[in-house]
Amino acid sequence: MKLLEDRIRRDGVVLPGEILKVDSFVNHQIDVPFMNELAGEFYRLFANEKINKILTIEASGIGIACLTALRFNCPVVFAKKSKSSNIGDDLYRTEVYSYTHGNVNNVVVSKKFLNAGDKVLVLDDFLATGNALVGLIDLCDQAGAEVLGCGTVIEKAHQGGRERISRRCRVESLAVIERMDESGIVFAE
Amino acid sequence: MKLLEDRIRRDGVVLPGEILKVDSFVNHQIDVPFMNELAGEFYRLFANEKINKILTIEASGIGIACLTALRFNCPVVFAKKSKSSNIGDDLYRTEVYSYTHGNVNNVVVSKKFLNAGDKVLVLDDFLATGNALVGLIDLCDQAGAEVLGCGTVIEKAHQGGRERISRRCRVESLAVIERMDESGIVFAE
Repeated sequence: MKLLEDRIRRDGVVLPGEILKVDSFVNHQIDVPFMNELAGEFYRLFANEKINKILTIEASGIGIACLTALRFNCPVVFAKKSKSSNIGDDLYRTEVYSYTHGNVNNVVVSKKFLNAGDKVLVLDDFLATGNALVGLIDLCDQAGAEVLGCGTVIEKAHQGGRERISRRCRVESLAVIERMDESGIVFAE
Repeated sequence: MKLLEDRIRRDGVVLPGEILKVDSFVNHQIDVPFMNELAGEFYRLFANEKINKILTIEASGIGIACLTALRFNCPVVFAKKSKSSNIGDDLYRTEVYSYTHGNVNNVVVSKKFLNAGDKVLVLDDFLATGNALVGLIDLCDQAGAEVLGCGTVIEKAHQGGRERISRRCRVESLAVIERMDESGIVFAE
């Protein structure tokens, strides 16, 4: 998506360790009018699927998930990264290793909000190793919910994520980064 | 807002300790089409202010903040609850005690995204003791940003929050709970 590639070139900051900071418009400050354009693209890509729920993970997936859900006229469920004191015990659980933070998160979702028969679009801001998406798909599997696709805003190719996810479902990333370093970012054709 | 009061009566669950669970539509599953109606009400209430930024706190404020920002055509900044490894050091910091989780969170926002001259609407899902909103206002004060109002989806009256916040700015809650227990919920007139 050219709109997004241009924005990443303009406002993205590449840090050592293949870290791309897009905190000025994606995941700390959220440029909502801009992200709403991306939501429209997710809708275009998945409009023919009978999506009835969008699943994401706190915190940085919530914005794009809500804007996209507005297009699909469906709810969002966001998986939580640790057991909150009043979330209840009736949970699906999985573990997700965070490359960015270097820790393992216990990720949970209430059994009330993922069900057999749900047709789920899984959304997140980044696809790199695929750990977060694999965890979210695992939660859907536990619930017997059907995953109709995964969508991510930015994919970092060559970190293996797409291979892991595309075995299971369609994967759509709005920008795919082939390689990057301090001198620049190269997007996949 | 009657629409919201009806929904809380129907789907809210009162737990001991004056805890109201609204996780089926506000803060675990997000009923996005419904929350979008609430976003419209926040827009109606604050449309005459020259809001250029919405500030909230992760994770449960992000959904309503993004939906409301779409109405104002402005960005959202969400304060983060702990120092992420790549958020940088140039941060405004405050501490927020969480009544729900019984812990103190170090809450931060990058100095890049809150500035003198910003006219901020602070949004969150709940107003009870007011700790989270006081923390968010403190971040705005550190930045020299102007807080034009605070909006919350649900206010639990008699926990002192409104008194603390209304000294500083206008407070609008879409539903105000006067009292509640397992037998029912009474809203303020």
